[in-house]
Amino acid sequence: MPHIHVSDELNGIRSLLAYKPSTGTKIAQLIHEMLRGPSPLSAADRERIAAHVSQLNECEFCARSHGAAIRHLDAMTIDVMTMDGVTVNGPASGTTDDSEPTPDMPDAAPEPKLKALLALAEAVARGGQYVTDDLVASARSAGAADEDIHDTVLIAATFSMLNRYVDGLGAVTPSEEAAYDAMGRQMAAHGYLRAAPTIG
Amino acid sequence: MPHIHVSDELNGIRSLLAYKPSTGTKIAQLIHEMLRGPSPLSAADRERIAAHVSQLNECEFCARSHGAAIRHLDAMTIDVMTMDGVTVNGPASGTTDDSEPTPDMPDAAPEPKLKALLALAEAVARGGQYVTDDLVASARSAGAADEDIHDTVLIAATFSMLNRYVDGLGAVTPSEEAAYDAMGRQMAAHGYLRAAPTIG
Repeated sequence: MPHIHVSDELNGIRSLLAYKPSTGTKIAQLIHEMLRGPSPLSAADRERIAAHVSQLNECEFCARSHGAAIRHLDAMTIDVMTMDGVTVNGPASGTTDDSEPTPDMPDAAPEPKLKALLALAEAVARGGQYVTDDLVASARSAGAADEDIHDTVLIAATFSMLNRYVDGLGAVTPSEEAAYDAMGRQMAAHGYLRAAPTIG
Repeated sequence: MPHIHVSDELNGIRSLLAYKPSTGTKIAQLIHEMLRGPSPLSAADRERIAAHVSQLNECEFCARSHGAAIRHLDAMTIDVMTMDGVTVNGPASGTTDDSEPTPDMPDAAPEPKLKALLALAEAVARGGQYVTDDLVASARSAGAADEDIHDTVLIAATFSMLNRYVDGLGAVTPSEEAAYDAMGRQMAAHGYLRAAPTIG
């Protein structure tokens, strides 16, 4: 049960954003800009960093909803690439192994750059001081530039916030997968501005 | 030295907000709304929660800059109260002991409600799961209502983010107190929108 009185009709972070729209709107705008705005990282890879940090912080609501968003974004990418006549095993698919990524297999081993950025994100989740020169150098060796590093640290830091906001206020965490699948579909298609309290 | 190339003319979080204005602007707007927008908590008490969490996270830049903001806000409050002919020992001064708060003594023992909210903030800093029913009940017994609890959790969560953003990217942390005093004065007088990258 949530620690404060929020709408029964909303769950997870949406119930909190709607509880106080003045801050809720600003939070939704930041998430949208960070995960869907300009970045050298694809939306799916940014969601991977978000879901990974949320798992480390044991925030079930965030980990499952962003996990669902990854699956829907991957499926959308494959749909587009198939329509374009491009092989789904091309570099833009975000995989380097020989297997064919499909919507049923979104958790293929990450490419080296993403793997290094996920390690960086893990350090940020522990605390800013755990980001070492070596971790940053490894990410650069794997192809990461300044903006990849900035965006990774910002996403990991922001999910260290969102995970604490959701669980610190005891927001409702659905158990059924269908709830997360519906959220993930909306997040993949429309991003986060619709999570703002004015739209609910 | 920062892990990415940022302006030499800016330090701490300002250098990061300016590095990527698209997200920087959203972050500054959230901080301003959270620490200066509508809340049952005074701006000074919100800064106390921010500084406390930053100390726990050992983020020197955030702890010292928000500590300086508290001192300037307290001094402004006392100036206004003195001008109004109100005793500086009244309830709005945020202290319950017999000592006279002055600009030189901003760290008087917090009133019971603030003390309970700081304990709540400590739990959030550790992780959302550490917020117990007992901690929330203690805050309510000390006079906290839903919005006090919401705002405390949000501030503690957001500084868990900002501390990681600053230290995770190795932002420049000045050593001299004068730098923090100048920042604290600006934060007390104008809030955070001036920290947005368009103004620098």
